[in-house]
Amino acid sequence: MNVKKHVVVIGAGFGGLQAVKKLSKNKDVMITLIDRNNHHLFQPLLYQVATAVLSPADIGIPIRSITDRLKNVTVLMDEVTKIDKSRNIVYLNKKELSYDYLIIATGARTGYFGHSDWKNYSPGLKNIYDALRIRNRLLISFEEAENHPERSEELLKYIIIGGGPTGVELAGSIAELSHSIINNDFRNIDTRKAKIILIEGGSDLLPSFDRKLSVYTKKRLEKRGVEVMLNTRVMNIENKKVFIKNPYGEKEISGELIIWAAGVEAAPLNANSGFNVDRQKRVVVNEFCSLNEYPDVYVIGDASDFKTKDGKPLPGVSAVAMQQGRYVAASIIRKIKGKSTEPFRYVNKGNMATIGRKDAVAEFPGISFTGFFAWLLWLFVHLFYQVGFKNKISILITWIWSYFTFGASARLIQNPDDM
Amino acid sequence: MNVKKHVVVIGAGFGGLQAVKKLSKNKDVMITLIDRNNHHLFQPLLYQVATAVLSPADIGIPIRSITDRLKNVTVLMDEVTKIDKSRNIVYLNKKELSYDYLIIATGARTGYFGHSDWKNYSPGLKNIYDALRIRNRLLISFEEAENHPERSEELLKYIIIGGGPTGVELAGSIAELSHSIINNDFRNIDTRKAKIILIEGGSDLLPSFDRKLSVYTKKRLEKRGVEVMLNTRVMNIENKKVFIKNPYGEKEISGELIIWAAGVEAAPLNANSGFNVDRQKRVVVNEFCSLNEYPDVYVIGDASDFKTKDGKPLPGVSAVAMQQGRYVAASIIRKIKGKSTEPFRYVNKGNMATIGRKDAVAEFPGISFTGFFAWLLWLFVHLFYQVGFKNKISILITWIWSYFTFGASARLIQNPDDM
Repeated sequence: MNVKKHVVVIGAGFGGLQAVKKLSKNKDVMITLIDRNNHHLFQPLLYQVATAVLSPADIGIPIRSITDRLKNVTVLMDEVTKIDKSRNIVYLNKKELSYDYLIIATGARTGYFGHSDWKNYSPGLKNIYDALRIRNRLLISFEEAENHPERSEELLKYIIIGGGPTGVELAGSIAELSHSIINNDFRNIDTRKAKIILIEGGSDLLPSFDRKLSVYTKKRLEKRGVEVMLNTRVMNIENKKVFIKNPYGEKEISGELIIWAAGVEAAPLNANSGFNVDRQKRVVVNEFCSLNEYPDVYVIGDASDFKTKDGKPLPGVSAVAMQQGRYVAASIIRKIKGKSTEPFRYVNKGNMATIGRKDAVAEFPGISFTGFFAWLLWLFVHLFYQVGFKNKISILITWIWSYFTFGASARLIQNPDDM
Repeated sequence: MNVKKHVVVIGAGFGGLQAVKKLSKNKDVMITLIDRNNHHLFQPLLYQVATAVLSPADIGIPIRSITDRLKNVTVLMDEVTKIDKSRNIVYLNKKELSYDYLIIATGARTGYFGHSDWKNYSPGLKNIYDALRIRNRLLISFEEAENHPERSEELLKYIIIGGGPTGVELAGSIAELSHSIINNDFRNIDTRKAKIILIEGGSDLLPSFDRKLSVYTKKRLEKRGVEVMLNTRVMNIENKKVFIKNPYGEKEISGELIIWAAGVEAAPLNANSGFNVDRQKRVVVNEFCSLNEYPDVYVIGDASDFKTKDGKPLPGVSAVAMQQGRYVAASIIRKIKGKSTEPFRYVNKGNMATIGRKDAVAEFPGISFTGFFAWLLWLFVHLFYQVGFKNKISILITWIWSYFTFGASARLIQNPDDM
């Protein structure tokens, strides 16, 4: 009799889902997919929830609706508390599961480089709750300013820390919201005077992109009214205050809302289960995305530190997670069949970030674009990779509507007292 | 010089918005619209947010996006703490406004007939927070049951108290969600076995409808797997328990989620400002929707108790609020011009409630429908009265998608720990 192998996948992000989809095609495996949430989150568009363009359900797809037809997949909404690698057991809140193969795809969360108290004053943007909190605080700041116009200069001031794609997209999007989308909505204040400050520690925005695109991005953000501060290190964050240091000296700047987009770290699970982790708590894996001592345990995506041949870790982008997810699924199936596997190789298919309406940057091996065409490409790619037909349609309609009306329809303060 | 009259409108519900829209056309008035929330809520579809079909932003329209072009309208997101009728002053949290005319359109909230402790065990459905809480608890019950199939009988049990339109629509919708929409999503449980109990104190569901339609509704709900208990009074509610009394005796029934749809009362503002209120805290108004002693203070919609000639109060439906809103706006303009006004007369244009997919009841003066045609009419009317083009489109697309795929796409557990 052929006993089916049990593969446990932790995390239904980009990596975990790709692994599950590929594995499910093989009827000799049973798969259990565990996630703390009931939805897969399309993180690249999370900033559009934070800035009131999209609704949470547009980018949060029920995991069960993705796997309902994959009969060898069981989904559990639960939290993994510990992994016992030597006994092949995953511990959940109230039960335990044994596995033949384990794929850890737990992703990343906001990281404050050890300054955990900054979290209270500078929320990150990694999940729907974060996005709704930022949306609430952003929208409430305008309402407060309308109620107290004498305080509007102080209230309409937003600081974004971190000049990577998330920081750039947030800054561009907040500028658009305040400077054009809602500027006819108020009677006592002029929202076009809102101040948006983007702080980056290095010498360029979008440091992982070609420098030409970084320079372009800075210029265009500034044209849209974003103040960009490069080479600026954050020394401390307090309530509505950021202490910075740059070549011009040290300074304290205040902001009604301070958003942290400067760093992430892997989920804490790994540290508690005896994994070899790097400074960002990512599990160091070998060229097969697995552990030398436990070759049937795989770690992929943002949860892992995979070094390329030149010793650099792969970037924390969805493309890496997805390719690794498919790779480890294929590896497991080959192992079950008694075949060997080649090491994982990441194929960089390109990189993009949007600056705002009709403007983006995109780079591909050998070629790069900016402006309207890059923006169209960005829209297309993000719709294409969106999971679920209903979501694609819903997002497309919202974008078309927003484009023609300059509107942001999800401008809902959901629960002011709670945030 | 012609000094503009200042009209203060409290509440941006159906009544308040109609009043503001009509008043804004007269350039001799300045209008201030005050609401605790930043959005107008299309309450008739709130149950579809609670049952994961629609997103909050589909039925929550930013008030400012409705009034942005009405230059004589100022919107304030604030709370009215007190009204001083003799000095024509409205007190807000941090400021005060004087008015020439006041329209109180503060609506209703869930009322427990004095049993305020029932609130903790049996949430109502009056705002977006309520709807998201019910959605969360509903979705979590399925997840819990999948994790603990041995407890599924107890977990998949929902009690709805109150057989009016909200209760009927919730019961039908929860039956649809559990019995057909998600029944392929789980591996360890059969969600078709979920038990939905609808409790009504009177002898009929939808008591305000023609009895023929009430009987039809009960039959169809039962066919969809809802257990309907008529003539059943709720004696007490505790955590996951309802104590009932009916002609068959007294009994305790348990449910994972108990929803209260049995009663509403007016917002507490009125009671604190020396108004003459009825048992449901509604302000008793005269035939002009105003107060005898203060004819420039109007109270409309669910906040008011307007008696028709036969001594019965008007029902708490949106049509009453909208007609009263337009009526008081016209009255104020006539007063300013020195003209007199006829008493308000409600024109009943009909009444509808949906039972579920392809089934509803609708009655109009002289004619009534049931089934597919009533359902189509219900869809059409609810889209037509929806405020905002983007919302109409978004809801239409979602309904079409749900119709063909049997899907509910807003199946998001947003913040499990918070609820």
